[in-house]
Amino acid sequence: MSTRPHLEAARALIGAPGSRRNIPTPAAVLDLDAFDKNLARMALRAKAAGLALRPHAKSHKCSWIAKRQIAAGAVGVCCAKLAEAEALAAAGIGAIHVTSPIAGEAPAQRAAALARSLADFRIVIDHPDGAAELGAAALSPIQVLIDVDVGTGRTGVSGIEPALEVARTIAAQPNLRLIGVQGYGGHWQHMEGANARASATAGGMARLSAVISALRNAGAEIRVVTGGGTGTFEADAAQGVLNEVQPGSYAFMDREYREALKSDPDGEFEQSLTIAATVISVNHPRWVTLDAGLKAFSTDGPPPVPATAKFAGCGYRFFGDEHGLLMRPDGGTVGRGERVELVPGHIDPTMDRYDVLWLVRGDVLEDVVPIEARGASQ
Amino acid sequence: MSTRPHLEAARALIGAPGSRRNIPTPAAVLDLDAFDKNLARMALRAKAAGLALRPHAKSHKCSWIAKRQIAAGAVGVCCAKLAEAEALAAAGIGAIHVTSPIAGEAPAQRAAALARSLADFRIVIDHPDGAAELGAAALSPIQVLIDVDVGTGRTGVSGIEPALEVARTIAAQPNLRLIGVQGYGGHWQHMEGANARASATAGGMARLSAVISALRNAGAEIRVVTGGGTGTFEADAAQGVLNEVQPGSYAFMDREYREALKSDPDGEFEQSLTIAATVISVNHPRWVTLDAGLKAFSTDGPPPVPATAKFAGCGYRFFGDEHGLLMRPDGGTVGRGERVELVPGHIDPTMDRYDVLWLVRGDVLEDVVPIEARGASQ
Repeated sequence: MSTRPHLEAARALIGAPGSRRNIPTPAAVLDLDAFDKNLARMALRAKAAGLALRPHAKSHKCSWIAKRQIAAGAVGVCCAKLAEAEALAAAGIGAIHVTSPIAGEAPAQRAAALARSLADFRIVIDHPDGAAELGAAALSPIQVLIDVDVGTGRTGVSGIEPALEVARTIAAQPNLRLIGVQGYGGHWQHMEGANARASATAGGMARLSAVISALRNAGAEIRVVTGGGTGTFEADAAQGVLNEVQPGSYAFMDREYREALKSDPDGEFEQSLTIAATVISVNHPRWVTLDAGLKAFSTDGPPPVPATAKFAGCGYRFFGDEHGLLMRPDGGTVGRGERVELVPGHIDPTMDRYDVLWLVRGDVLEDVVPIEARGASQ
Repeated sequence: MSTRPHLEAARALIGAPGSRRNIPTPAAVLDLDAFDKNLARMALRAKAAGLALRPHAKSHKCSWIAKRQIAAGAVGVCCAKLAEAEALAAAGIGAIHVTSPIAGEAPAQRAAALARSLADFRIVIDHPDGAAELGAAALSPIQVLIDVDVGTGRTGVSGIEPALEVARTIAAQPNLRLIGVQGYGGHWQHMEGANARASATAGGMARLSAVISALRNAGAEIRVVTGGGTGTFEADAAQGVLNEVQPGSYAFMDREYREALKSDPDGEFEQSLTIAATVISVNHPRWVTLDAGLKAFSTDGPPPVPATAKFAGCGYRFFGDEHGLLMRPDGGTVGRGERVELVPGHIDPTMDRYDVLWLVRGDVLEDVVPIEARGASQ
């Protein structure tokens, strides 16, 4: 018996009229018309701003998306973790920047192996011991960047002196090449209002600029200044500290971003990704039960909302691990087997649940592609 | 390049002293001593109560666990969805009861295929159209149970008349065999206090009993009465309506169950499953940063708590998709690369993130097994 017979059977739907409604659910569904527009729009914004575009693959985990982003002008992708980078490298992505520091000998050896096998591999460092570990593992040159804490307190050196110390340790390692710095303010991305995001970003970018000046004064070559996300693109472009940006969610969008960014230029992307669900029980007078619950969506953001017109405004509530409750539309009947597509609350941890992405145009399934780095958080 | 080099490399750790601390993180780690005790204890409770034990595989998704449960006396397992059943069937599990109704022709055909290939397959139905669909797809006899809503309003027939109607539709399908009923109160499982759970369960079981009587009076053979979970075992055993129970979390436990069940007999299971994480950044004076965040744990339950003694009482907070914040222990230093194991808030959607389960005894890694039905919610 096959391990996933429903996937094999569903490939037969490709190209059939109405096949979008026959995808086995729950499923991550990508509307290609909206996705194409999002890719083109971000490429245009980056080009107009003179910024290198390196989209973050932690949002999608999928080589097909990464290849489309690179074809649309991206210089490569970012990965959050080594395993994510390894999975995308195995699928043919040759330009990867790892945005989280690593710790320990085994991860250092994995990073060194990636550097040997990829045309363009880079990784951030935020501690002298991290530089020493990676230097010891490096059998060939590795491009590294100093990760600078711009106010989140999550990763990164905390200021000028620690940055200089990391730079000295890097310089002492024959196979490490310092090429730049990273400053990423994750907590700025979902602030409501372009002005609030710009003002928070300005404070962080001032810290980053001070570190860059000190490193340059100490003789370091800082060629790449990378950071930023979907929510701070306008601010990053205006402030001019970064020369490379790492947005991820723009390709898909989600409820959290839609509500924070509204009609700001940063929010002018279409909802291309939905989670398709099926009504599997209709016995309650006030609601119906969907086959998509806590395992189908992340719950850290706002709850999903229906994208299917018939269910517009109908509230969704998690109904255990496997199910969701969807209020019945006023005056309408709902049948067993009916399909509902929903906008997820937060895209990154939602996409990370799915093994495949269903590509649709209009009501036709065009292809099914693997999400190779799903679950690759190691 | 391999798609998951860290997994291949880590298999070399098996049997090495201290290897538990070298598992690539984030990782789902099963303490076999605690797990063995949990399995033995539940087997004993079920035997003493005269209840057939059919553990729910939606908690673990893993054939290795299912086989151990069956070896310890379980009559088979439950699966929430067809894809979960298909994955476990492909891995050699022969006795599967599907606990959610399905809707549509394609799912009915998948259920029929499972019935043909398994020694003991069963599925629930909660609507006459579901019986008609499954009957039309059935090329050989299929065992079915009527799912009865015992108060959750999620799935199940809403009372006696709808139950009789479903029974009549089943009887009209030559290849459907009605063998029993299911009544599961998911919302009862986490109520605090054995008395509260017993009282809620009693109300639901009264509804179930009324349906059973009506079905028997109408000539139906109701051999199997299945339901229940880890939290209501004592109540289910005392009330005597069910003759088969479906607990899942007892094998692992989680923070949500620990806090609701405390030292009730229902809660006398050990925490066998932890999520291992690594400290990857130590630059902040008040906290350190772990490599386990929103993608490593479900967030619907309470936040994870450290199980590692050094970090006892240190608060964990989600720090974005990829990271967690862990407060520093009083007076202790924390090094980059240090390991922390954490008790997850809610086990089922947490396990559903991981491709493999790391089996440890003491500080030694004994084996790594696949979680075959991870993500199989279709």
